Amino acid sequence: MAVFAIDPRLLSASEPLASLKLSEARLQADARWPWIVLVPRKVGARELEHLTAADRATLMEEAVAAGVAVRAIGAASGRPVEKLNIGALGNRVEQLHLHVVGRRADDPAWPDPVWGMGEPRAYSESVLAAAREAALTALQGMKRK
Amino acid sequence: MAVFAIDPRLLSASEPLASLKLSEARLQADARWPWIVLVPRKVGARELEHLTAADRATLMEEAVAAGVAVRAIGAASGRPVEKLNIGALGNRVEQLHLHVVGRRADDPAWPDPVWGMGEPRAYSESVLAAAREAALTALQGMKRK
Repeated sequence: MAVFAIDPRLLSASEPLASLKLSEARLQADARWPWIVLVPRKVGARELEHLTAADRATLMEEAVAAGVAVRAIGAASGRPVEKLNIGALGNRVEQLHLHVVGRRADDPAWPDPVWGMGEPRAYSESVLAAAREAALTALQGMKRK
Repeated sequence: MAVFAIDPRLLSASEPLASLKLSEARLQADARWPWIVLVPRKVGARELEHLTAADRATLMEEAVAAGVAVRAIGAASGRPVEKLNIGALGNRVEQLHLHVVGRRADDPAWPDPVWGMGEPRAYSESVLAAAREAALTALQGMKRK
């Protein structure tokens, strides 16, 4: 039986945040945007159609919770989120994953999408700790029992 | 009471396809990609969090159906879809809308996102008719009663 694993490219671009009911929630290691990636724990899933309808509904609710978390990260860093961007692309990494990104009109890619845009900027340790704490508080209610 | 209307910028970039249970499904007027835009008929909605959880689950199912339709358009035009890209951005047009786009490794933006990429290419009349027919057949089961 195949065992679930997160693609190494997703792993190296992000840090673990929380195990939610369906997905692993990870903080994208890019201080340019408050950004959470959800990776459903389903072996071989590449498209939404590879999840059951019930799991898709769960993923949708996890995306909304991730949006709350992303807003919390933005607020904690003094840059409140003005718009959420949600995307499931998978053109580079085919494992199903959903991006939830906080955007502002003064961010480095606005109004274009963030994906494939420039190079990530590392978090400072203190900002990362604040971002993690804000995100974890916001995700608390969605954590796997 | 405010009446639902589709933002003129979405209207001018797309053609009507079908009224689904929650959303208006529209064919993006850009022959570079098989591309459907779903616009939930909810006045004032800008983010997923402005829909109820039940409506969000419906939107998710409409996105999967739109994916089937997008694959049908690709097949009808001899360019089968290899990957679906799903996105809710709203950086330019704030009315909540969800993009479902069929991608191929030989398409003009791959592996980058399609949003904000170059200028739309008009459909020829015959290809447009085939695309509409393929999409409508695929969306039949999701149409508003």
